[in-house]
Amino acid sequence: MLIGGRPWRTIWQAKDGVVEVIDQTRLPHSVEVRRLCTVDDAVRAIAEMWVRGAPLIGVTSAWGLALALRADSSDAGLAEARARLAASRPTAVNLAWALGRVTAIVSPLSPSERGDAAAVEAALMAEEDAATCRSIGEHGAKLIAALALEKRGGAVNVLTHCNAGWLAAVDWGTALAPIYVAQERGVPVHVWVDETRPRNQGAALTAFELGEQGVAHTVIVDNAGGHLMQHGRVDLCLVGADRITRTGDVANKIGTYLKALAAADNGVPFHVAAPSSTIDWALTDGVAGIPIEERSADEVTHVGGLLADGTAASVRVTPAASAAANFAFDVTPARLVTGLITERGCCAGGEEALRGLHPGGPEPTDRRGTRRSRCAPRPP
Amino acid sequence: MLIGGRPWRTIWQAKDGVVEVIDQTRLPHSVEVRRLCTVDDAVRAIAEMWVRGAPLIGVTSAWGLALALRADSSDAGLAEARARLAASRPTAVNLAWALGRVTAIVSPLSPSERGDAAAVEAALMAEEDAATCRSIGEHGAKLIAALALEKRGGAVNVLTHCNAGWLAAVDWGTALAPIYVAQERGVPVHVWVDETRPRNQGAALTAFELGEQGVAHTVIVDNAGGHLMQHGRVDLCLVGADRITRTGDVANKIGTYLKALAAADNGVPFHVAAPSSTIDWALTDGVAGIPIEERSADEVTHVGGLLADGTAASVRVTPAASAAANFAFDVTPARLVTGLITERGCCAGGEEALRGLHPGGPEPTDRRGTRRSRCAPRPP
Repeated sequence: MLIGGRPWRTIWQAKDGVVEVIDQTRLPHSVEVRRLCTVDDAVRAIAEMWVRGAPLIGVTSAWGLALALRADSSDAGLAEARARLAASRPTAVNLAWALGRVTAIVSPLSPSERGDAAAVEAALMAEEDAATCRSIGEHGAKLIAALALEKRGGAVNVLTHCNAGWLAAVDWGTALAPIYVAQERGVPVHVWVDETRPRNQGAALTAFELGEQGVAHTVIVDNAGGHLMQHGRVDLCLVGADRITRTGDVANKIGTYLKALAAADNGVPFHVAAPSSTIDWALTDGVAGIPIEERSADEVTHVGGLLADGTAASVRVTPAASAAANFAFDVTPARLVTGLITERGCCAGGEEALRGLHPGGPEPTDRRGTRRSRCAPRPP
Repeated sequence: MLIGGRPWRTIWQAKDGVVEVIDQTRLPHSVEVRRLCTVDDAVRAIAEMWVRGAPLIGVTSAWGLALALRADSSDAGLAEARARLAASRPTAVNLAWALGRVTAIVSPLSPSERGDAAAVEAALMAEEDAATCRSIGEHGAKLIAALALEKRGGAVNVLTHCNAGWLAAVDWGTALAPIYVAQERGVPVHVWVDETRPRNQGAALTAFELGEQGVAHTVIVDNAGGHLMQHGRVDLCLVGADRITRTGDVANKIGTYLKALAAADNGVPFHVAAPSSTIDWALTDGVAGIPIEERSADEVTHVGGLLADGTAASVRVTPAASAAANFAFDVTPARLVTGLITERGCCAGGEEALRGLHPGGPEPTDRRGTRRSRCAPRPP
């Protein structure tokens, strides 16, 4: 997608074989590229959130394994690198999924072949992710187009939380992909962007990428969505996911649950867009079973941004003596989810529909990327 | 209540007759006193939120009228000052209530008597407010004590939103008064403090006053309360109100509605503490009828705080090209409110119980301040 009118991805292999990523901690004020030369760099990129978003974390971890295997391609080296990468963020299931996939490819190979094979697989996963997200966009755009028809051409107001755009993936994104596809097709869309404290990924990343793509949007504080829904100013909530249980419970950025409650209370459809690799088929109870990362209190006590003179700075917003707690995700129970959008199509929330869209459950990896849609296209 | 171990109020008359207030925009990092010499100063203090919180806005507007009448005590001067003060913030009903009360006192008087009479009335209202809040604290502390019993002495975890502490009133506060009274009586309490974007009155003011008073507390982002309630880590939600309809709908700081939804979804009691002057007996539908102030987008796009070197600064958190919207309040429907706590006692949410506690509806002003409790004390 676009930055400054030029197409970008979030992660790519440079000509010298090193992996490069956009350092998302510097957005929206500065676009900086970081080079990942070792598995240490990849772990740091994930843990310090130069890259974030479930799909991108997955792809970065695959590249991280490839970087590790270039340095030490032994079984022990593989196992250690996999464990370190798996521990870099605890909530997104794509991380474990991606590491498992690369490991399955390289384990049977001789150590000398492993590095290259892992790099090929990581590159393939990046391509697949882009195709998967585009497919999510195609399916989700039908929802937006249908709402635009109901509004007789008026802009569809979509509320989104955190960043589940192309910056959270390799390209296109998950929750924002339907918006980009709708925009391509001339469907008028306006996005309410939750700022998404504590890291402000909405204000910093979603607003940035929507702006670069020319999509109309308005930043709001996380507190505002309920008020907007009460007053009929939201037509659709569209969010991403870090993990979805087999029963359809959705772990996503902290605060998603509150928006789902408001959507249910006001009859606003609440949809979750995510690749099917986000589904954790082993889990049935999201609230009890999904580990919720606790991050540094500094992210709550301090806010980063740009001073009037254009320099980056961080300000303390709490009294120095006050403690803070920082839970990174929450779980939205399936009963509050109107529908799920995966690369396979759209389905209702909950286990039965999810299983209907994915009848094989956790299937062997489809190396072609996008699967065929199993839900009939709705009339536009 | 305490700052630096010494007792303070939010507003007082200095020896030279000028009114002084704590400039709350400088908290928690600096305690600065501002002098209000004219009605212009009072309007600015309210509009720019040196003072905020429904009870304190009411008392400040009363003092503002007294200051205005010192300069121009004519009928026209009174009417103009009243109109300007009434327009300084649109949502809190205490503002109109306080202005109406002072006007009723001074209108029948000769212009030469009005200034002094208004000052006497403003001072009386400040004393009454302190007594009213203390009374709210007494009633509300019983709820906390009852929960402490259920927890067999474990700390009661109270979640609060925005600042409805003594900084929002003259002394004691509304939602925090029960916490201070409980603390006085040795009931263990821990407070989850919503930071309350966009102006961070939770992180800046509630955390500050709880810290100065020695109450255990943890600052969280506004997104976190739902997660905490899902996991049984909140025993009680306790918030203030800017306006309560006769039917029990509650206007309070934006985001309150989302916490009420989460409380209802998780069986957590949700109580609203406010003086009875907050009740707007003329309104039945809060969502449709209460005007919601829209403030400057700058409050969303920028965050103020303290740089590492101790200087105050404001940082931009959004892309320069992104629009932002800033709704200051939302309305929590009565169906989500477990109970109300006024200076008269505790009652269930909703019109019938509210009317039961206030059988006369909008009664003539009780110049003695605190009224007797009409709900029998619960066993501790």
